[in-house]
Amino acid sequence: MDLNCDLGEGFGAWRMGDDAAVMPYIDRANIACGFHAGDYLILQRTVRLAKEHGVCIGAHPSYPDLHGFGRRALQFDSDEIRAMLLYQIGAIAAVCHAEQVALRYVKPHGALYNAMQVDHELFRAVVKTIAEFNRGKPRPLQLMTLAKLQTATEREIAAEYEVPLLFEAFADRCYEDNGHLRSRQFDGAVLHEQQAIVQQALAFARGESISTYEGNSLQLEADTLCVHGDNPQALAALKAIRQALSEVC
Amino acid sequence: MDLNCDLGEGFGAWRMGDDAAVMPYIDRANIACGFHAGDYLILQRTVRLAKEHGVCIGAHPSYPDLHGFGRRALQFDSDEIRAMLLYQIGAIAAVCHAEQVALRYVKPHGALYNAMQVDHELFRAVVKTIAEFNRGKPRPLQLMTLAKLQTATEREIAAEYEVPLLFEAFADRCYEDNGHLRSRQFDGAVLHEQQAIVQQALAFARGESISTYEGNSLQLEADTLCVHGDNPQALAALKAIRQALSEVC
Amino acid sequence: MDLNCDLGEGFGAWRMGDDAAVMPYIDRANIACGFHAGDYLILQRTVRLAKEHGVCIGAHPSYPDLHGFGRRALQFDSDEIRAMLLYQIGAIAAVCHAEQVALRYVKPHGALYNAMQVDHELFRAVVKTIAEFNRGKPRPLQLMTLAKLQTATEREIAAEYEVPLLFEAFADRCYEDNGHLRSRQFDGAVLHEQQAIVQQALAFARGESISTYEGNSLQLEADTLCVHGDNPQALAALKAIRQALSEVC
Amino acid sequence: MDLNCDLGEGFGAWRMGDDAAVMPYIDRANIACGFHAGDYLILQRTVRLAKEHGVCIGAHPSYPDLHGFGRRALQFDSDEIRAMLLYQIGAIAAVCHAEQVALRYVKPHGALYNAMQVDHELFRAVVKTIAEFNRGKPRPLQLMTLAKLQTATEREIAAEYEVPLLFEAFADRCYEDNGHLRSRQFDGAVLHEQQAIVQQALAFARGESISTYEGNSLQLEADTLCVHGDNPQALAALKAIRQALSEVC
Repeated sequence: MDLNCDLGEGFGAWRMGDDAAVMPYIDRANIACGFHAGDYLILQRTVRLAKEHGVCIGAHPSYPDLHGFGRRALQFDSDEIRAMLLYQIGAIAAVCHAEQVALRYVKPHGALYNAMQVDHELFRAVVKTIAEFNRGKPRPLQLMTLAKLQTATEREIAAEYEVPLLFEAFADRCYEDNGHLRSRQFDGAVLHEQQAIVQQALAFARGESISTYEGNSLQLEADTLCVHGDNPQALAALKAIRQALSEVC
Repeated sequence: MDLNCDLGEGFGAWRMGDDAAVMPYIDRANIACGFHAGDYLILQRTVRLAKEHGVCIGAHPSYPDLHGFGRRALQFDSDEIRAMLLYQIGAIAAVCHAEQVALRYVKPHGALYNAMQVDHELFRAVVKTIAEFNRGKPRPLQLMTLAKLQTATEREIAAEYEVPLLFEAFADRCYEDNGHLRSRQFDGAVLHEQQAIVQQALAFARGESISTYEGNSLQLEADTLCVHGDNPQALAALKAIRQALSEVC
Repeated sequence: MDLNCDLGEGFGAWRMGDDAAVMPYIDRANIACGFHAGDYLILQRTVRLAKEHGVCIGAHPSYPDLHGFGRRALQFDSDEIRAMLLYQIGAIAAVCHAEQVALRYVKPHGALYNAMQVDHELFRAVVKTIAEFNRGKPRPLQLMTLAKLQTATEREIAAEYEVPLLFEAFADRCYEDNGHLRSRQFDGAVLHEQQAIVQQALAFARGESISTYEGNSLQLEADTLCVHGDNPQALAALKAIRQALSEVC
Repeated sequence: MDLNCDLGEGFGAWRMGDDAAVMPYIDRANIACGFHAGDYLILQRTVRLAKEHGVCIGAHPSYPDLHGFGRRALQFDSDEIRAMLLYQIGAIAAVCHAEQVALRYVKPHGALYNAMQVDHELFRAVVKTIAEFNRGKPRPLQLMTLAKLQTATEREIAAEYEVPLLFEAFADRCYEDNGHLRSRQFDGAVLHEQQAIVQQALAFARGESISTYEGNSLQLEADTLCVHGDNPQALAALKAIRQALSEVC
């Protein structure tokens, strides 16, 4: 079980979170590619920072929506998805190549990430694009997506295009009985107590079930845990998770 | 002697020139990478169009300046130049890879192109970045730059980093005795008569001297001719050059 | 019956249509405000051009979507609609004030225009914002919206906020029996024959019924006709409409 | 002597400083207009916040340069300056009008502000544009500019166009003997000790001389003091200045 975090999400003079504080505690950095956040300079800086800490690098592409931080649902057809993803993945891949560090995976951002959880054709478009990027490369990029109760269709599509999947779960988000994350529109969507967050992280790490919003047990298979570090509480929780995992693993 | 043209320079709903009309008559397409013009969709479309016509593809990166079309002189240090170029070259490289066509060279655009003609440190930053992109690749990207009377320094820098150079001359621009293009700020900067344009193109192709603004002879070594096709006259001139060259070469 | 046209829709180095060719033939210029097209320079230039020709000036605000030309449907709440409209209307109002010419009306653009035809709360948000802009002004801005069979709700809302309405019909678009424009997704959405366009324009001008896609008669009350001039055929049709109207009125 | 501060400088999801914390301690809010920072939503929110606290509102327009935060020096002619300023001033003026609060002055931002201190033609273009905006208005917008030893030319230009000037000094910046702010490129440009900052603020407030970098006395006439509140130290200094001024005035 490893920890991933969205990083490189400033823009120009604006900062978002404290990448330097987070980087020592994570295993995977999902680095913004300039469409919802990040720019060429921040991208380069964040790739260098990840390399210094030996953190595995992933592309974090998005719909083109700087003002809305990639959270607006846009209707893009397969060709637009392909063009948009190739542009962003290529950009970060070139920076990684120049910094002599590997780009390992892709985790779509925000509205794109949410849309591909419910739209299998969109999921296919994402997988197919990654496969086209992977063609002829010695080591294929993986796709990071949401751990769910039902992942058979996603696994089939990924297998068809030979794109390895990474399933991520959330340490600080509440799950419902259906295996979905409780929407941020409702109360109880986010766990705030550090103890509860660490406990949920440990459950995922041990392959044990977690408690749902409704109070039942839920078991999800996850390869990686998404964590946040964009405020003092989140950073403290991240450190506690790191500590707890190191004792277990 | 071959012909190159700046293409893919629309943005969103806006068009710039008629790429489909130009593509059949050129050998190299300098394709905009989204910083002065072009976007992920136009980039993908233009790469496909170039591939269909067997036209050699180059990246046409720029300072980030969509509103000013990359014509504003910006002060960027080496690190900014590097980040900016890697981002753009990587983006088009990924699209080319997915389309299974090679990316062959880089031609900086507008203010960046002009600045690197007079600032050797900037030229070095561009060359060094291309070299970093080239590392480990079977076939290195070339750098297209302006044919001039004095190119010793540029050749030395390029040799140091093993980046091959392509020198380009202009068929429809007037040169001065010093070997520089006459500035567009002055009269006589652009040749408008088709016969004069074709004659200058042929002179470059044959390695013969051309007539300068001052009325003297000037000889420049060029590998490729930059042509335009963004209006009916320019397209007619392009076809005439193509025809004339085919009779010579 | 007068003629209105969307103008000032270039961006930076990019052109859209030929504003100078269209301006002599229209009565109202709907001028882009920089969110879907236009920029501060083009806005200033287009306001000057309209003033020279004595053309009545309207603001043509949009969702913030330069790359999608304002055609993407976005979900904005009333507060966002208000902020967005005030920003754009204020910008063009200041340019008009400096040019000593009046700003007379507002015509929302693209996806925003379409959305407010079917969402009365959105329509109310637009009207209310215009009313807030109008407060204390000697002459209120009008709102231009689509002529339809049912306009009672729109009229009520507009009356509540004392915002005068201008209903526009389209000379070159096909209508269906329900009074709606036939969608551009289907065949027959746009009239291409000049004679048919002029005939439809004349019918609107005379208050007569037009022929629908289904072949029936439809009568719509309209104050102004939207015309296009962004290609040679459209410009020719515009001139023919102008000529025909001048003989009638 | 009053206190002014640059506010509303976030963008989309990004924050810059803590406007709500600063607003209670200042007299004038220079509010970003969307070209270097701010957007229509942040602009509306900041105007509302200023109104709540009875803070006088000024426009803080900039060169169009979101990525560079308006700090890049651009070459704009008078017509571009005019179009750019009218657009931004008009946008914030409309928001203020709708919020029923007055817009009182204009303080150009960043590179534009710096450039107009040394280029009198640029200063004239700014003044002339404000005058055009002011025409026919009951109360003219003022222009806030830098307090200097020599201001005769600025005063003449402003008088010619009947634009009132507000001279601002800086509480936390070091001045040189020539009356200029010490450049941030050099050591000692910024005062960090709260006592020194408060002392300098008080000197300006009392019309007394301050100590220069070279250790001499310098007297500058100022109407308003620019303060910052974008970090805990700056906010503490701001509160201390406010306290000290309240005891004096």
